Amino acid sequence: MEKRAPADHPITDVIARRWSPRGYDASRPVSSENLMSILEAGRWAPSSSNEQPWRYLVFDRSDPEALAKAHDCLSSGNAWAKAAPVLMLSVAKRTYTRNGKSNRHAGHDTGAASISMALQATALGLWLHQMGGYDPEKARAYFGIPDDFDPMAMIALGYMLPETEIPPEILLRDQAPRVRNPVEAMAFRGQWGAGLE
Amino acid sequence: MEKRAPADHPITDVIARRWSPRGYDASRPVSSENLMSILEAGRWAPSSSNEQPWRYLVFDRSDPEALAKAHDCLSSGNAWAKAAPVLMLSVAKRTYTRNGKSNRHAGHDTGAASISMALQATALGLWLHQMGGYDPEKARAYFGIPDDFDPMAMIALGYMLPETEIPPEILLRDQAPRVRNPVEAMAFRGQWGAGLE
Repeated sequence: MEKRAPADHPITDVIARRWSPRGYDASRPVSSENLMSILEAGRWAPSSSNEQPWRYLVFDRSDPEALAKAHDCLSSGNAWAKAAPVLMLSVAKRTYTRNGKSNRHAGHDTGAASISMALQATALGLWLHQMGGYDPEKARAYFGIPDDFDPMAMIALGYMLPETEIPPEILLRDQAPRVRNPVEAMAFRGQWGAGLE
Repeated sequence: MEKRAPADHPITDVIARRWSPRGYDASRPVSSENLMSILEAGRWAPSSSNEQPWRYLVFDRSDPEALAKAHDCLSSGNAWAKAAPVLMLSVAKRTYTRNGKSNRHAGHDTGAASISMALQATALGLWLHQMGGYDPEKARAYFGIPDDFDPMAMIALGYMLPETEIPPEILLRDQAPRVRNPVEAMAFRGQWGAGLE
């Protein structure tokens, strides 16, 4: 399903095409080559002091027990994600490794790595959907996430089903239009609240 | 100056080419069309509950007083950024608009919007460099940033100087190799610290 952003100003193809589907094809695995390219795209994100605070836990059918635990962390509204052949959990390191000080950019920089991965997935014909709806403390306990790391988003990765094979209640959610606030609500010139022009 | 990521696995062109230069051309402005396309790319980033917590303050020569204040927020190590024709400040809204609750993804999602803008800039032949080295509380006071918003990164945007025209001490920093931790240090399979294979 194509769901190109209805952009008000021209944007580059891979950014326009990226979206977050729910109708994943459980029968099509993600190759190791593609997974590595997706992680590699995240690797080259910029970060404060080049700390690279992002970490990714990867779950797939090579370890069904870990994958089942990842499923168990999902909120009920995200049950569709159980069809994705790969789940990942993004995690942000709260402190700088070189001096132990608090890194207030940890979440910010992890978000940059994750969307780089989403765009790389799009370029490969794969789709990545980040979710806030999961239990971060359950994930911490299940997967041994250390104290100075914050679980950020659960991530579904895989191919989309053909539209005709997507279960109706999932299709309905996937067909909802993409909406965003206007640029004027997110950008101000010179002073908070000022117009762009 | 080309500074393509020395990637271990293939990544899409715009992600490989994006980097954060310092040698900006003070004489080449950014057109309004390009600025709008760059903001538009950020606009389509995904966010928790589609909150779109990102805001951008934009400074350029159309308002020299505001631009001078933005310059005054930069740390001395980022004085090179004064040559950029556009500065922006990314800001994250700490609470969800619909219910006032804390949004722990605000920084994360703002980071996603900002790197989308960096990739759009790259696609347009422009370069965007995000900086943590500035005074966020000075910026809050200068620009009227409300209490429930966190200043995230100062951002330089513009064209690069030809290599022969970059001041030597800036060129030296721009010529430093791009380095990242290996993928194995950022991704684990199934359990914290486990190998990917």
